[in-house]
Amino acid sequence: MLPRFFAALACCLPLSCWTPAQAADVTTVRIAQLQIKPECLHAFTLAVREGMEAALRTEPGVLAIYAVADKNDPTRLTFFEMYADDAAYERHRQTPHFQKYFHTTKSMIASRVLHEALPVELRDKHNTPARPGR
Amino acid sequence: MLPRFFAALACCLPLSCWTPAQAADVTTVRIAQLQIKPECLHAFTLAVREGMEAALRTEPGVLAIYAVADKNDPTRLTFFEMYADDAAYERHRQTPHFQKYFHTTKSMIASRVLHEALPVELRDKHNTPARPGR
Repeated sequence: MLPRFFAALACCLPLSCWTPAQAADVTTVRIAQLQIKPECLHAFTLAVREGMEAALRTEPGVLAIYAVADKNDPTRLTFFEMYADDAAYERHRQTPHFQKYFHTTKSMIASRVLHEALPVELRDKHNTPARPGR
Repeated sequence: MLPRFFAALACCLPLSCWTPAQAADVTTVRIAQLQIKPECLHAFTLAVREGMEAALRTEPGVLAIYAVADKNDPTRLTFFEMYADDAAYERHRQTPHFQKYFHTTKSMIASRVLHEALPVELRDKHNTPARPGR
């Protein structure tokens, strides 16, 4: 019975302890600053959520997309996006969900500035877990 | 022997499968844009790395700090920082490692702009694992 138990354990552990792609895998970063027309903010947010969910779920090279709003102006948004490499970013732009987001929201955006960036140091709780007391 | 094995397993599994804090726990975001004096860039980067490692390792409320450089100008840096809440951010500013970083690098920074932000949607491979083919 014991060997069978170990075999079952070996099958289950990689699934339950699977580690997804980390910040350490990032080579391409994009930062987008968007000004949204106030009357479009709700519709824009819905489109963003749908597009981001699809991108993270279906594209292995899209590692993170963080959308945040200025604390004093909810229509001023920043997107901080991390990709495995430039090719992953280019593929992302061609996906049906990105194209849908892009065309749906085009008229909702008052201005957009895109910055290309490279990682200097990317730290989070996945690559540097907190160990309180140390 | 089997019960002892299960007891040992129960002790080990929570460690190996422990899930660290996620983007979903973030309520406070700070974005800092820094222009570094070119002659100080190397020293600045070393100080940043040391401070970030200590912050993530010792502060449970510091969830991520991502430092990136403009693709065409390595002295133009952006810091995208995620905290559990405002109190965690304030505590972070008072830590010895932040104070050391702050005073060490003060003279290396030509300009600094800090933006306070709130999450709109934060997605990464930890809260939305990729499932290729879907």
